[in-house]
Amino acid sequence: MTELNARAAKLDAEDPLGYLRAEFDLDPAVVYLDGNSLGAPPRQVAGRVEEVVREQWGRRLIRSWPERWWVAPERVGEKIAPLVGAAPGQVVVADSTSVNVFKALVGAVRLAPGRREIVVDATTFPTDGYVAESAAELTGTMVVPAVVDELDDVLSERTAVVLLNQVDYKTGRLHDMAAATEKIHAAGARAVWDLCHSVGVLPIELDALGVDVAVGCTYKFLNGGPGSPAFIYVPHHLQAEFHQPLPGWGGHRDPFAMESSYAPAPGIARARAGTPDILSLLALDAALEVWDGVDMTAVRAKGLALTGFFIECVDELLGRAVEVVTPRGEWRGHQVSLRHHDASTLVAELTARDVIGDYRPPDVLRFGFAPLYVTYGDALRAARALADLLAERG
Amino acid sequence: MTELNARAAKLDAEDPLGYLRAEFDLDPAVVYLDGNSLGAPPRQVAGRVEEVVREQWGRRLIRSWPERWWVAPERVGEKIAPLVGAAPGQVVVADSTSVNVFKALVGAVRLAPGRREIVVDATTFPTDGYVAESAAELTGTMVVPAVVDELDDVLSERTAVVLLNQVDYKTGRLHDMAAATEKIHAAGARAVWDLCHSVGVLPIELDALGVDVAVGCTYKFLNGGPGSPAFIYVPHHLQAEFHQPLPGWGGHRDPFAMESSYAPAPGIARARAGTPDILSLLALDAALEVWDGVDMTAVRAKGLALTGFFIECVDELLGRAVEVVTPRGEWRGHQVSLRHHDASTLVAELTARDVIGDYRPPDVLRFGFAPLYVTYGDALRAARALADLLAERG
Repeated sequence: MTELNARAAKLDAEDPLGYLRAEFDLDPAVVYLDGNSLGAPPRQVAGRVEEVVREQWGRRLIRSWPERWWVAPERVGEKIAPLVGAAPGQVVVADSTSVNVFKALVGAVRLAPGRREIVVDATTFPTDGYVAESAAELTGTMVVPAVVDELDDVLSERTAVVLLNQVDYKTGRLHDMAAATEKIHAAGARAVWDLCHSVGVLPIELDALGVDVAVGCTYKFLNGGPGSPAFIYVPHHLQAEFHQPLPGWGGHRDPFAMESSYAPAPGIARARAGTPDILSLLALDAALEVWDGVDMTAVRAKGLALTGFFIECVDELLGRAVEVVTPRGEWRGHQVSLRHHDASTLVAELTARDVIGDYRPPDVLRFGFAPLYVTYGDALRAARALADLLAERG
Repeated sequence: MTELNARAAKLDAEDPLGYLRAEFDLDPAVVYLDGNSLGAPPRQVAGRVEEVVREQWGRRLIRSWPERWWVAPERVGEKIAPLVGAAPGQVVVADSTSVNVFKALVGAVRLAPGRREIVVDATTFPTDGYVAESAAELTGTMVVPAVVDELDDVLSERTAVVLLNQVDYKTGRLHDMAAATEKIHAAGARAVWDLCHSVGVLPIELDALGVDVAVGCTYKFLNGGPGSPAFIYVPHHLQAEFHQPLPGWGGHRDPFAMESSYAPAPGIARARAGTPDILSLLALDAALEVWDGVDMTAVRAKGLALTGFFIECVDELLGRAVEVVTPRGEWRGHQVSLRHHDASTLVAELTARDVIGDYRPPDVLRFGFAPLYVTYGDALRAARALADLLAERG
């Protein structure tokens, strides 16, 4: 135990990203390991939101729409673009992830004429599968569940679209985006990636890999706040042919002309639907400022080191009392999932001791390690708290 | 002029809703007549939003989801229910109006099996028409444009759904919801109402009129803030059969069970899609507090009186220099639209003089009269400012 204490202290002292924790408004008494579900608030968000209400809304009133609000979805999208390897003009912030998955799938099916199957990762976050079923019903296609490692078994000339999560929400496993995208393209299908559990975690190269459409959420590792709006990526070369099924006035080429027919905007704005939700969007805008000057390679290195150190602590302090579900090698995101038959109760008891993770049924304890604010000391304290709990049970 | 001044002063002094203006954070120098586009901020919103960020998010972190956030869409929906004549359990706040129009139309088409036409008011706010075209394409139906006064010409056994705006966004004309709904039902079709320009304006009786589905926005006369989330109404007797096309986990009967198949919630929650946008939703929650104890009959009476007084001022001060587009009788909402060939420039010049309305192409000046914070003095000052502008032009 003493040795782990010393290791944690040394790792924290030498952490090149350690200075970033001060950017977050976190209770020092709490070990917060649920940033993969809801990121912690960057300090500037509260004041910014208040300013938006009092000044931009209260004083400028309707004038703020043309002055600054209308283009905010694209402007904030440009802040996310470098985090996903996208050149400018290809990312827009709008709606929820579920709604964007729907836009992405229907839009992608239309990019694959004559093909009638939507392949979906069978262990995907459920909402993706629900929305895929609806998209299939409405586009006259069908959903085919698949195991990511066995994509070859399902890909065919019938495959229109494949929807995959880069990091599995439950196990934390990281999939090989390059290899999967290549296979999907070799089958003549469109690759749609859900980045909810990977954006803000590791370098993503959407442009370089030729991904067709991607969506992601902003309230996990991007710390946008509860339910903050999601984003959608469509590369330049596909935008003219991308016809999404929610053609609200926000995606119109000339929204204030109030034309009676829909004509999509020429660029990524066509992925917008209705009126953007400005308070949440500008809270996200403020939250994204913490990424200025942050190198994603360093983020990834710390995330692997943090999760690796946590697994080491678990091994040493907990032994075989829990099963580490997350891959021990490099193919993992920044969460560690542990299996225990009493996971639900343990998560509640840990929370009562100010160690906050979460529970995913039926038997998984999840711990997220956001490299911008989680310390090695946090990782050790969490493992120790869990060990103590199990020891007290005898 | 002196007589109008005296009338305005007397009307304001006797206004039973006059006390409510103090609830809003409005610059006293500004005459704000664009609450039909973006309502003014109720005073408590800024502090509430800051509290949500600092306390609910910052201190409670993920614990706020089960403690208070997850059910907020239904809870805030219950605050809107009495404003639209809905018994509890039938209104939920979620997504944008455009997205809810899509849910409403696809859901309503499914409530009218075998029928293949979606009738849409030809002068509707454009986004409704755009979304209707998409809903039609995906459900194998077609859009039929109609004039509201001539619904009989288009209703038939082919009509699945009729989508109408209660108040026309451009002219301010109020349609007869009771008569139109009755006609639609007589044809065996479903009535979907867009309440964007009528909610917060007049008593609405969705339950009593047997409306099938309704949607509305909250950032106009409900003052929820820029792009605040919209609402959707589905009456109890149709909920079990209402299958909307965006089945995100938010609408699942057991969202945290992470089941692999979608099973809709039994009640109005099935109209939810993805993760709710909490900052904007709780800003709206705070904004709706100003309606506590407010009688919609009084709101309607003041709205008619305010718009009537404004029309009177326009007649007296502007004569034939502008055309009053809005109906002069009772069939109007709380906006007055004036036609002038140079409307766009005039709106900009008025704004420069702190009289804020808005412009709708090609030639309409719109002035919204929110009874909770607009005074008769504001109405007079606006008419006079416009008269001065035109007089200076000679």
